[in-house]
Amino acid sequence: MALRIRPFTVALAGGSGSGKTSLTQAMVAALGPDRCSVLDHDSYYRDLSQLSLAARAETNFDHPDSLENELLARHLADLRTGLAVQRPRYDFSTHSRRSDTTTVEPRPIILCEGILLLAVPELRSAFDLRVYVDTPADVRALRRVQRDIVERGRTVQSVVHQYMTSVRPMHERFVEPARETADLVLGWQHTPQEWAQTVMAILRGRMLPSAGA
Amino acid sequence: MALRIRPFTVALAGGSGSGKTSLTQAMVAALGPDRCSVLDHDSYYRDLSQLSLAARAETNFDHPDSLENELLARHLADLRTGLAVQRPRYDFSTHSRRSDTTTVEPRPIILCEGILLLAVPELRSAFDLRVYVDTPADVRALRRVQRDIVERGRTVQSVVHQYMTSVRPMHERFVEPARETADLVLGWQHTPQEWAQTVMAILRGRMLPSAGA
Repeated sequence: MALRIRPFTVALAGGSGSGKTSLTQAMVAALGPDRCSVLDHDSYYRDLSQLSLAARAETNFDHPDSLENELLARHLADLRTGLAVQRPRYDFSTHSRRSDTTTVEPRPIILCEGILLLAVPELRSAFDLRVYVDTPADVRALRRVQRDIVERGRTVQSVVHQYMTSVRPMHERFVEPARETADLVLGWQHTPQEWAQTVMAILRGRMLPSAGA
Repeated sequence: MALRIRPFTVALAGGSGSGKTSLTQAMVAALGPDRCSVLDHDSYYRDLSQLSLAARAETNFDHPDSLENELLARHLADLRTGLAVQRPRYDFSTHSRRSDTTTVEPRPIILCEGILLLAVPELRSAFDLRVYVDTPADVRALRRVQRDIVERGRTVQSVVHQYMTSVRPMHERFVEPARETADLVLGWQHTPQEWAQTVMAILRGRMLPSAGA
């Protein structure tokens, strides 16, 4: 029964630290694992293994061109037509793609999470529903700093430097302007569960016409 | 000659981490120490020595009522009429006022720095010129976190907690709304020296009418 309707693709976008991952997890919990598959833009970072380590370190990982958007667009198109795809796996420590992949099955709802999903035209048009989590810049910056210091053992200086020289300018240039292309903007003072309920209500409404097809 | 014109009071306001102190220092450098005196709102925190340490720790130091605004207003009025004042000295480690004071002389320009200067009506009207340094919230938050971690040895968790539960809500409630009462709003992408030049140009214009008095 799951494959009788065309998979419905949902972009979960928003700035770094906005709460995209919490929303994705709440969506999976609300839908159940049989009714959804999850992709993420970060897995599609370009393989830089042919570059020197110095060149890799100089790459701007907050720019849309650092991601293999054409491959993600093709995977979304394949999933929409009912085909499974081989999602790449990325090793952030070496900035290279692992040799193995993860099979992602077509299921009724395809969730895809990523900061820059709405900033790339060919990706933006690959989604049936575009969601943007709109969290203020200071809250996002502090979450990012806290995560990078506590979970990744980085210094406050290095995190702040990266934020100011790369994350922030790319957000202003690409992420924030793409917000207006979203179908749904979620305010930050709600819980991920409340966000998921809002998205679920829209999914039910959008999918009804084709539910009997 | 310095006392032949009435001292001119200037508020240098803006959120935590906006660059107020850098602006104050650039102003002092531009004016020279003989032509200006400096006050700061923080020195006027109320003395909490009669409260228990637990009660002191629970005080909201980002709320205007935590400062003795009536005393600062009186000091500004005294300086304007040419009288020296005894500025209190505050001990942040014990949240109490020290027994000694600092003498602040009346000079042509009285600079006063503080987050909440424009948020308190009796202070706002005590200034001849109101300046607001307008720096984005994420930049301010990161500067504050970096300063508190690096200079004060605090943990990222405690700094972020304080920012989210006290600094941020008080900024939204008091600091940001008072921006519109400023005579001059300075954009964050200029240097403190550029800010100071802008303020100096306005001071020269404003003070000309009374310069020959």
